[in-house]
Formats: sequence, structure tokens, C-alpha cells
Amino acid sequence: MTLTYGVHSEAGLLRRVMVHRPGTEMARLTPENREELLFDDVIWVKQARVEHMTFCDVLRERGIAVVFLRDLLTETLRDPEARKWLLSARINDNTVGVGLSDDLFACLMEMDADPLSTILIGGMNRAELPIPRAGVLIPMLRPQDFVLPPLPNHIFTRDTTCWIYGGVTLNPMHWSARRLETLNLAAIYKFHPDFRDAGFPIWWGDPLVDHGPATMEGGDVMPIGNGAVLIGMGERTTPQAVGQVARALFAQDAATRVIACQFPRSRSAMHLDTVFTFCDRDLVTVFAEVTDAIQTYSLRPGKAGKIDVTEETQPFLAVVAEALDLKALRTVPTGGDDYESQREQWDDANNLLCLSPGVVIGYERNTHSNTLLRKAGVEVITIPGAELGRGRGGSHCMTCPLIRDAI
Amino acid sequence: MTLTYGVHSEAGLLRRVMVHRPGTEMARLTPENREELLFDDVIWVKQARVEHMTFCDVLRERGIAVVFLRDLLTETLRDPEARKWLLSARINDNTVGVGLSDDLFACLMEMDADPLSTILIGGMNRAELPIPRAGVLIPMLRPQDFVLPPLPNHIFTRDTTCWIYGGVTLNPMHWSARRLETLNLAAIYKFHPDFRDAGFPIWWGDPLVDHGPATMEGGDVMPIGNGAVLIGMGERTTPQAVGQVARALFAQDAATRVIACQFPRSRSAMHLDTVFTFCDRDLVTVFAEVTDAIQTYSLRPGKAGKIDVTEETQPFLAVVAEALDLKALRTVPTGGDDYESQREQWDDANNLLCLSPGVVIGYERNTHSNTLLRKAGVEVITIPGAELGRGRGGSHCMTCPLIRDAI
Amino acid sequence: MTLTYGVHSEAGLLRRVMVHRPGTEMARLTPENREELLFDDVIWVKQARVEHMTFCDVLRERGIAVVFLRDLLTETLRDPEARKWLLSARINDNTVGVGLSDDLFACLMEMDADPLSTILIGGMNRAELPIPRAGVLIPMLRPQDFVLPPLPNHIFTRDTTCWIYGGVTLNPMHWSARRLETLNLAAIYKFHPDFRDAGFPIWWGDPLVDHGPATMEGGDVMPIGNGAVLIGMGERTTPQAVGQVARALFAQDAATRVIACQFPRSRSAMHLDTVFTFCDRDLVTVFAEVTDAIQTYSLRPGKAGKIDVTEETQPFLAVVAEALDLKALRTVPTGGDDYESQREQWDDANNLLCLSPGVVIGYERNTHSNTLLRKAGVEVITIPGAELGRGRGGSHCMTCPLIRDAI
Amino acid sequence: MTLTYGVHSEAGLLRRVMVHRPGTEMARLTPENREELLFDDVIWVKQARVEHMTFCDVLRERGIAVVFLRDLLTETLRDPEARKWLLSARINDNTVGVGLSDDLFACLMEMDADPLSTILIGGMNRAELPIPRAGVLIPMLRPQDFVLPPLPNHIFTRDTTCWIYGGVTLNPMHWSARRLETLNLAAIYKFHPDFRDAGFPIWWGDPLVDHGPATMEGGDVMPIGNGAVLIGMGERTTPQAVGQVARALFAQDAATRVIACQFPRSRSAMHLDTVFTFCDRDLVTVFAEVTDAIQTYSLRPGKAGKIDVTEETQPFLAVVAEALDLKALRTVPTGGDDYESQREQWDDANNLLCLSPGVVIGYERNTHSNTLLRKAGVEVITIPGAELGRGRGGSHCMTCPLIRDAI
Repeated sequence: MTLTYGVHSEAGLLRRVMVHRPGTEMARLTPENREELLFDDVIWVKQARVEHMTFCDVLRERGIAVVFLRDLLTETLRDPEARKWLLSARINDNTVGVGLSDDLFACLMEMDADPLSTILIGGMNRAELPIPRAGVLIPMLRPQDFVLPPLPNHIFTRDTTCWIYGGVTLNPMHWSARRLETLNLAAIYKFHPDFRDAGFPIWWGDPLVDHGPATMEGGDVMPIGNGAVLIGMGERTTPQAVGQVARALFAQDAATRVIACQFPRSRSAMHLDTVFTFCDRDLVTVFAEVTDAIQTYSLRPGKAGKIDVTEETQPFLAVVAEALDLKALRTVPTGGDDYESQREQWDDANNLLCLSPGVVIGYERNTHSNTLLRKAGVEVITIPGAELGRGRGGSHCMTCPLIRDAI
Repeated sequence: MTLTYGVHSEAGLLRRVMVHRPGTEMARLTPENREELLFDDVIWVKQARVEHMTFCDVLRERGIAVVFLRDLLTETLRDPEARKWLLSARINDNTVGVGLSDDLFACLMEMDADPLSTILIGGMNRAELPIPRAGVLIPMLRPQDFVLPPLPNHIFTRDTTCWIYGGVTLNPMHWSARRLETLNLAAIYKFHPDFRDAGFPIWWGDPLVDHGPATMEGGDVMPIGNGAVLIGMGERTTPQAVGQVARALFAQDAATRVIACQFPRSRSAMHLDTVFTFCDRDLVTVFAEVTDAIQTYSLRPGKAGKIDVTEETQPFLAVVAEALDLKALRTVPTGGDDYESQREQWDDANNLLCLSPGVVIGYERNTHSNTLLRKAGVEVITIPGAELGRGRGGSHCMTCPLIRDAI
Repeated sequence: MTLTYGVHSEAGLLRRVMVHRPGTEMARLTPENREELLFDDVIWVKQARVEHMTFCDVLRERGIAVVFLRDLLTETLRDPEARKWLLSARINDNTVGVGLSDDLFACLMEMDADPLSTILIGGMNRAELPIPRAGVLIPMLRPQDFVLPPLPNHIFTRDTTCWIYGGVTLNPMHWSARRLETLNLAAIYKFHPDFRDAGFPIWWGDPLVDHGPATMEGGDVMPIGNGAVLIGMGERTTPQAVGQVARALFAQDAATRVIACQFPRSRSAMHLDTVFTFCDRDLVTVFAEVTDAIQTYSLRPGKAGKIDVTEETQPFLAVVAEALDLKALRTVPTGGDDYESQREQWDDANNLLCLSPGVVIGYERNTHSNTLLRKAGVEVITIPGAELGRGRGGSHCMTCPLIRDAI
Repeated sequence: MTLTYGVHSEAGLLRRVMVHRPGTEMARLTPENREELLFDDVIWVKQARVEHMTFCDVLRERGIAVVFLRDLLTETLRDPEARKWLLSARINDNTVGVGLSDDLFACLMEMDADPLSTILIGGMNRAELPIPRAGVLIPMLRPQDFVLPPLPNHIFTRDTTCWIYGGVTLNPMHWSARRLETLNLAAIYKFHPDFRDAGFPIWWGDPLVDHGPATMEGGDVMPIGNGAVLIGMGERTTPQAVGQVARALFAQDAATRVIACQFPRSRSAMHLDTVFTFCDRDLVTVFAEVTDAIQTYSLRPGKAGKIDVTEETQPFLAVVAEALDLKALRTVPTGGDDYESQREQWDDANNLLCLSPGVVIGYERNTHSNTLLRKAGVEVITIPGAELGRGRGGSHCMTCPLIRDAI
């Protein structure tokens, strides 16, 4: 398959998307480990899978190709070189302790790709170890302690890597609970037949290297078109990362302006897409309590490879409109009264995936916000989110667009 | 209607039960106030109401009379004396501030019973105040600030009052967010036609009086039959309350033994019924990680109105069996592997309402635990709990049995 | 001794003050119980006592009479009527459980006043119980568990009661860990020879009654003179209390204006005196980050016993100046750079006790703030606070002025 | 100076020690950033410095050579190669953002060693930036925001590196707030004239490499003699690190047994030395509540470079005694009653530095524990700790022994 990957807007026609259906890794969330694994609650996996299938059905009905991270990983692992690359990064003395890594590496090199894929996403506990008790770590573990950790946040494919126009970034994640996700994705992009020969650049990010405080997550990144990229800076994305991404994009003429969006210190947000997403070429949904307080800085290519930084004096929405050569953005606020709008923002009412101009997917529970959007002319396709929504992510968080048209 | 109220076991035939369908009070939970209101998450009220209706349908299909707290309160408020009693306790200078209470009291005395019931359960914010701005408090509030607080925990009718054999306790709740619930219930028991002439004793508790550290909640209280009562002591119920209840029961020959169940300090639990409920005359569901560490003390009537206290040396389950003159209890543990059993306990797998010997209601999501129960011969009727379950309470928490047979 | 008690300003000549030297109650703070007892850290009691003696020496050297809460309580307990009143409130079935209160009451009625005073301030654990094991509670306790709790916050005599011009309030404290303090103080004011015949009014507060959300603490209350009283409203003092106090003061012509000071929601403060105290008739120390955002409301006597409330449009400091008929207040900010000013506020640099116009006591550690005050002409007498300061209270918090002149 | 570095016991004669006197880095702790920087409280730096000087005086009076981390760093920075190595690791696009690193690197390469040392320990905020506003990060910062972070935990020199017999480990720290410390120390060991030619091995640890979950801190590491090393595993040290260190030691015949000490999950501890330190060849101070529950595993050299792991069945103290060929250890518990022993453990009563057999340094505040030690024949030299102790570390935490005799 020879595809031309690339995401050229936030609201143009979506053609191909990568998702992850929750599985073993989610079934291993417990009331005790959920905080460390960045979840507020545990999720009924069986039902979450049904909801996720419904979500994918909607995408496919609209003609969007849906590819699954787990399938891609399994197919990648059929390539011995890929498998060696990934297992070398995952299985070593730092991760599984002295005296186990060689045997475990050898054993996993021989395993079928499908169960190996389960392990690399869902983790492996001591009781599941496929080899006799060995090494220093194993004797100290209880049967249910993890030798390889589960990666339940893989469901949020938006964050781990992100396509910015014709290339992709392999994101250094903020919390260590998510860092291994990037290795899985990097293996896919490097070795999977669909990607390895597709000839796209990796703008930034190397999962084998520690990026220190330079972290970025895809929920903050929006290639909105017209050469512009919005990047939110809150809990998880830092100016150190934004500068590096901007430099890489400018160096290859992939963008002409990066708009760094600083959340207010008193009222932060996890990602930009939890308070702001595009629904149409000029229509956005906003949780105004936060977006009204965003301070923006424009980064543009300067002389001799430098970056010019301008502190914007206009409000966030005006800056975005101007970057798109629009007079103004039409905005739809989170719906309902004072309590309801807070509740619906919490339940991802502002985290919408745009399928094509004016068509979005949202959770059915956000009735007030969905109604406001419909009144504004947006087609809102609803999906159930009783379980999916407990992860605190909506349709935008759960998708990594691979191919989207400009607008 | 002349009924004889009383709850004479935990597993005998259930005949009549009081519940509360979530409404306005739940719609006012927000990500910001939820912690103060004792909720982990906000709940989609519309769907929670549907789930609650399903729950009530199951009860009615099994021939159980279902009465609604809100209906009882509305009917109670039609009695001017009742209304005066309750409003006097709710509307005063301590609660709504100087300069407002007289006018607000007068205004609410004239209001229709139905909207007043909504207010006394769902709260009232400044914007809803039915009289002109007055007093000292009001000018200092934002429109969405509460003049009267919402009581979202009313959904857990189990806790606020509880029937122990032929009488009831009006419980002093542990957290102030729940104290006002007891006033609403007290008004119902004192003034509602179904109860005021029913001739039952109120064993203990006066919501007009501060009980200090002597707090008790119904989720800890189980009149298991044979003259015995289990009372858990963890986060919310204290020995000071247990002693007073025991004294009242013994003084009126209502019980012969109260078994105080002390949770381990290192691994407490909100209520006894979150880790242990009856499914049949001799069959219980247990979350063994906690129940195995419960230390019990038996309280029995002593001489001259004193109470004899015996520290039991047998394990909790053996003490309960002995109190019921059983050789042993059959036990069904929380189901699934190490992760799943923790997850299902969290999702109320051990919080089951027994409708009649061997028939219980549980959430459908707890598939592993429900399967174990079925293998043990228990009929498990499942209900959806995607929203209801987010309040961290199951069918046991959400019901206040009014009439249940001995077994 | 016939004294005329009363506090007529915040900066006039201080003549008599009540303090509490930390003792047993502080020695029972542990890393485990400190949070429940409202302390950040445990304190070396022996050294804290030395520091407190130094503090008292400074007061006495300046001619201020220093009376000790513990001495007053001991002397009060010599009066059998007083003892009976206080023990009745402290020893009952709600506090010590069924079956113990009569015997314990009888036993404590016979105890010497001095050790009894230690118990009523420092608490009593099970091992110390002066009578044989009895009742329901005792068998369930470990030796170190408290039968009567320690009251380590008694060191902050400012909060429990406060003199406003010629009378006093017996404050309903916000957290239950401090509520019993008010009983001890009430016994002193009602029964101690120095107070019982002194003919002053108790404006407000009855420790035998539950005031619900109407709570107030003295650290928020400042009778600044000219008939005005400032009352902060943050974590611990509510509009419901402020209104009641204002009504009581106005009814007896004790004040003409109460200025309610609302802290900003985003950056609250424990008490007004943690960010603002008087150093001279027109000079105050301010932590501007908070004081700049205080919204004030003026309460004045209205017609027919009503209270007129005016939302002030001027900044906090301008309102205070105007209330004192001053053109403006001179202000001294917390000293040091951005980090130091935050550190010194934390270490009570703004919590100063004014001994006479232009003379204050502060902790020596706050060198930057003390220097700024000295440059402004204030005499700053420093005391050590290595241990005292860990309770998060300074000289203002640790004193309850009984007699202070107007200015 | 040609010294032979090495630490051959925990209680043998101490000859040379590295410490760090708190400075700028500590003055930048604020109530707001303290949690991120791993402190409970802010500390009065001026006084803490005096206390630290007292501490060092005690060491010198006993003939121990005291070297200061800051002096060593300053002297190291006089070597251009050293400076280049360290600045390359500290100043790059990941840390200070794009467009600043070259200029800042160049500027710091020219700076005097002394102020540079201050910056590399104390951090640098935007206002202090020695070059014109440049790059992407700087325009987004407030003046007080850090470009280079302060490292206040440098005071705990015990943790960052540790000498095990004749070599040293450069520890990968658990929390990112401490990771940069290891770079400063590595520069010293690699380039400082006192160390670079001293011919000792670095057993393990490379601060330029990410060790993932393989983290270790010196407070957990005790080379107790007889070829044995204790390594605690609690919050900060992991089995993955212990195995690597054991392998390195065994490979070079530097140790014959590593005893991994697993803290109980329910009651963890920051470091082993917070609950257990040596006072004499066979006498230890223990906080029994934790040490009684430690599970130990012995690691010994196996065949072909493997490690044999034995789960010990004896209690922790018996295992340690046996490793030292002692019949038993004499133990002195934390002193005082139930409250006091918890308080004194919190205040580092068990965190003692042994100067020579039977001679230790402790904080004067821990009077009960010090008395017990003295009764057991230990000479306890006391130092003040009003400020130092607030960092939650005692004399053991605050010292990195460089030369200590065997015993």
C-alpha cells in the first residue's frame, strides 16, 4: 500500500486514522494502581470495547480508514529486525533487572507476534513469566507484580505521536507511565510495511533518548492549516519542546508559524484539546473559562536558522483566526448552566473529532453542548461514553489522524 | 395504610423498601465541588435515572413495594406542622444568615410541596432565591453559590436511617455534607401519614442535636436475625454510637447482642456493606482482604442496664455464624484474578441487596463475582450501573428496607 | 481584682493579654495525627516552651500583664460549679461512650484542679484512664488511643475567643479539632473570679450549641477603632457568623460598622491576620498578593434591627483607611525578593502583635520584613520562632488581648 | 594530595567526609515549590547555615577532614575541560530551550568559577540571565521563573553518590528534582585534582544515561564490612538497581554479599537510614515498627557471572548480625512513649552518623532516643537541628563519607 501520510488541518476531510481498542492493559488498572497509571477510575473493559467498536463503526461509515495500533504492532513484530529493535529497548537490566534480560529477550524473540503484542501493550506479571524464575528482580516480586508494565493510556493515540502536515513527531511523554508507548509507535513507523517506505520525515523525537524537560503530547498539537501549528503548554508540553519542534518544522519549510499557547497557571488543563477543538473551518468549541485566559506567543522562522518569538497581545481566539486569515472564529461554548458546563467539559464536551467540515463525533452524554453545536449548524454524531469517557478523553484524544486533507 | 414496619434479617423476604431516584441534587455535582460532596466523579443524571428506574422495576417485579423518598417528603410537606418543623431546622440564621431567614421561611411555608421538596433535596442557589435580595449572606454570593446545599448522597437511602428489627435509628452522619439528610428523613417518619401512626419506636438519634463523635451510618448496620445486630466501625461509625444504639436496643428487648466490627486501621472501608453482604440465610459475599482482618466485640445486656463487652477471639465470619446458630457461613469471594477482584469490589460486587433467600441484585459489570455467586446457587439479577455505580454504591447502599421478614 | 476588660483598637496600648504555653497537648502531636490536629509538623515542645517564655518576657518587660490560659483554667476548676459545668459538657456518652461517663465524671470531679487542667487541655489516653476498664469504648482502644483528645491549638489563644471593644465572643470554630477549646474558655469567662463579676457582655457564641456553618475564628476579627470591626472571611469564618456578630454589636451600640473582608477564592488564607496586621495607628503590614484581592462589604445598622450591606468598590486598604478617618494607610509589604516574601509570609512575617503604637513583636527569622518595618519607623522586637513558628502562627495568633486602649 | 578513598564500614573510624552547607538553592524554596523540590517546609537559611557550621565543627574537632561540595565544584570548574563537560550536560536545547543554549553555554564558559558554582547548585532565574533576552523559552517566563533549577537537596550528600568499600556509585536518583545533583558530583569525581588521579573505580552509574526504573540513593546503601553491603528498597531504590550494583561489586571482588532489604508495602520509608543506622560495631539504632517488617534477600556471586539470590527467613536484624559474624546486634530503639518515638523518628533520631565505634552525632531535640543510646554506652554528640532537621534528614543524610576505616 503506498499512501501519502499527512495531516493538513484540524477540520478537513479525515481519511485515515489510528486508534487503539482497550484490552488487557486496561483490565489491569486497579483502584490501587490507577493514580500511578494516570487514571481517575477503573473502567469496565468489556463494555469499553463495545463502545470503542461503535466509535470505529461511525468512522468507517463515514468512509474513514481505521487502523488499529495493536494490529500494526503485531504486524511489525513479524519483522525480526523490528522485533529486535523494540525488544532491545524494552528488555534490559534497567527494566527487568540483572540476570533475566538475556533469557527473556531470547524467549520473546521466539514468541508469536500476536501474544507478544499483547505483552508489549498489556504488560506481563511475574506469574506470566514464560521462563523459569531467574535473575534478581523476580524472586522479590509477588505473582501479580509487573515485570513489564501495562500501558493503558495507549487508548489515547492522539498523544503519543502526532502528524503535523507531512511528517510526524515521536513524542517524549510527560509522565513516565506513558513513555514506553512511544517505543511501540516508533517501531511501527520505522518497520511496518505501511510506513517504512512511505517516505515521510520524523520531525522530532527519539524514544531511545531522554529529552529531560522537553516533553510534548499530541493533545496539545494542532496543525490548523495555512502553515500554522497550535501547541498548548500546560501540564504536559513545555516551551523547550515547542521550540525544538518549531525549529524542525521551519528548517524543512513544513510550517511558517507555531503558536505556543500558554495556559493560565491558576487553572491549567491537561491538553489544549480538552478545552478547544475545531468543528468546521471557522467554528470551534471552547471552554471559555480557560481559553479566555490563554496567552499566545508566535514563533516564526528568523534569520540564520533562528526563531523569532512574538508575545501576542490579542486574545487567543483572535490570534488563531488571524493565523487562518479569518476575520473571526465562530465559537460554541460548553453548554448548560454553570454546573452543567463544568460537568460537560469534564466529560469531554470540548474534545471533538472533526470528520469533515461541520461534522464531529461527541459523547451522547454531553447533551447541552451537543445541542448548542447543532444549533450552530454542526452535525454531531454521538457515541456512548459511559466507560470510554471515564478515562477523561473523548473522540479527539482517542484518535491519531494519519491522513487528513487541508481545508 | 396501616403497615407494620420492621427489618428482621438481611436475607429474609423483602417486602417494602425506600429509595431515591437522583435528580437536581446530582445535576449540581461539579468537578470542583464533588470532593466536598463526597463523590469521586460527576454522574450523567439522565442516564442514572434510567438505570435507577430499571433497578426499581426489578424490585417491583419481585413484588416488593417501592416508595420514593422524594414522594414521601413531598407528601410530608403538605402537612403545615411538618413543614414548619422541617423549615425551622433548615432555615435559620446559622444556615442562611442574618436578615434572610424570616422572609425565606415565610416564603417557603407558602410554596407548593413539590417544588419545595426539590429545594430541600436539590438545594437552592442565589439566582433561584424566590425573594428579593435580602440579608447579609446573599449580597456576598455569586449567582451559582448555594444558599441551601444540594444533598446528592440521598441516593444512598441505606445510610441516613436504618431499621433494626421493629424500630428505626435517625443516624448522625459522619460528614457534614450528609447531616441534613437526616432532617428530611426525620420529618417523614414523624409526620408522614404512613409512618406517624405506625407505632414504631425510634431507637436512637435526634437530628436537632449534635452527637459529636457518636456517628453511625446505615451501611454499617445489619440486623442479621436471632436477636443479633452487626455494626461496622470504620471511617464513619464510631464505638460511641454503637454503645448508645446497643443500650437502646437492649433496654427495649429489641436485640440480645450487638457485634461491633472493627475494620483494620491499615485498610479501612467506608461501610461494612462495601465488603460483606448476605445473599442467603447462610451465604455471604466477602472481600476477604478486608473481612479477614475485622476484629469483633460482642455487646450483650449486663446487670443494671450495663453492657457487657467481650473481645472475640474467633474470626469475624465465625462470630457471625455462631450468632446465627450456624456451623459456618458459606462464603463467595469477590471474583476474578488479583486485579479483577479489586476492580469488582471497587464497583460494588460485594454490595448486594438480597430480595429473598438466595436472590440478590448486582451490577451487571461485576461478571466474575456474579458468576461465582451463580455457581454457588445464588440467583443474581443484574442491573446496569455505568452511572449509578460511579457514586460508589450498589443495590445495598441504594435501598433502605422498611419491611423485611425474619429468616 | 476588678478590671475593665475590653479591646478598643489593634494598635493602642496593650495592657493585658492571655496566652498559652504549649505542653502535653503538643507533645502528643505525631507525624500520623498532625493533619487531623491541623498541624503541618511536629514541634519540639521543650524548646517551644523556652521560646514561648521569651515571648512572654518581652510582653512583661513592656509592662503588659500576661495571664496563662492553663492557670485560669486550673483556678476555674477549683470552683465545683464551674467544674461540673465543664465536665458535663466534656464527659458524656457522645464523647467517651456508654458505660464510662458517670464513673469518669465522678472521678474527675474529685481530681485536683491542676492535673485535671492538664487533662482538659492535653487529653487523656486509655492507658491513663484513672478508673478500671469500663464501658463500651475502652475495650476497643489501644493504650495510646485518646479517650479525651489533646487540644494543641490552644496555643493560638487569638482564635478561640475574641474581645471586640467592651465584650467578647465565644467562637464556634471551623474544624472539629478546635471546638472543645471554646468550652474551656467559656468556663473561664463564666466562672473564674477575674471574669465572672467583671460585668462584660458576651456578644455571641454558645459552646453548648451547634452553630452549623456559622463559624468564626479570632484571627479574622479586628476591632480597629472608630466603631469599626474588620472580619475576614476565608477558610474558617463565614458570612453567616459575621452577620450574627454584627447584629449583636449593633443591637448594643458596640460598633457602628462591620467590614466583612472576602478573600479571593483562588488564593485563600487561613485568617486575615496571616496577611495583614496593624503596627501603628495608620501603618499596617500587608502580603499584597492576597490583600490586593480582598473584596469588602460594609455592614451598618439599618432600620428596625436590620443590617444594611454595602458592597464596597474601593480597594480593601482604602476602605480600612476611610473607616478610621485616615486619608490612607501607610503599608509595609512582606520583605525580600519574590521567593523571600513568600517564605516570610509563610513564617508569619505579617502576623505581628502591636504592643503600643509603633512597637510590634515578630519572629527574628523574618529579617527582610523586619528590616522594612524598621525603615518605616516601627520598633520590631524579635523573638525566636524555630519551634513556635512551625505551628504556622506568630505573635498575633498566640495572643488574646484582654485589655487594649483605643488609639 | 594522594589519598586512598574508600568506606569500609558504617561504624569504623571516619576520616574524611563531604558535606554541603545550604545556600542560595535553599533560599529559593517557597511554600509553593517546596513539594516539587521534595521539601515539607521552607527553612531559615541563615540559621541553617549556622547549624551546619556547628555540625562541621564537631566533625573537625574529632579529627575528621571536612570537604565541601561547593568548594570541590568551584575548583573543578576551574578546569576548562571539566567545565565544558558539565555545562554541555546542563545547558542544551532540552533544558534551556532552542536559541539560548549556545549563547548561554559560551557565557557560562567565561564566568568565574565561584559564581558559576552558585548557579549550578542554586539555579538561575530569568531575571538573572547574564545575556540579552534570547531564544524561545525566555520570553515565556516571568522574572522569578527558573531557567536552571535550584538543587536544595544537595544538602543530603549521602544520597547522590556513595562509596562502597574502595569505589563509588554515581546514583541515578528517583525523583527528577534530584537528578542533576549527580552531574555535579560526577564532574567532581572525574575532574577535580583530588579525585581524578586517585585511582578508584566507579562501580556503577552514568549521569549522562537514563537508567529508567533502575534508581538508587545512598541513604539506602550501607557497606557494613565483612564484604557485605546492605541496600534498602523502598520509595527510591529498586531491585533493578540493586542487581546492577551487586553484579559490578562481585565482578571486581569488591563485595561477597549484597543484602537487599525490602520495606513493607504498608509502611514504607524514604531510605533505610531513616529507620536504622550503626552506632558501634555491633550496636544499631532501630525504629522497630518498620525494621521488624523488613524482608531481606541475599545476593551472592554465582557461576559464570550470575548472581545467586536467597530469600532469607530470619528477621532483618538477625541477617545483618550473621553477615557480620556476630551472634546478635545490640539494638537501641527510638526513645520515649508511643507518641515521642514516632516524633523522634520523624526528627531523625535513627539517622545517626557514627564517627568512630561508639561515637555518634545526633540532633539535640531527640532527647529520649539520645538518652537510651547513652545508657547503652554510646557517646552522643548533639547538634542543633531546628532548621536543618526540617529538611527531614539528620547527620547520616547530610554526609557522604569519603574515607572510613574497616572495623
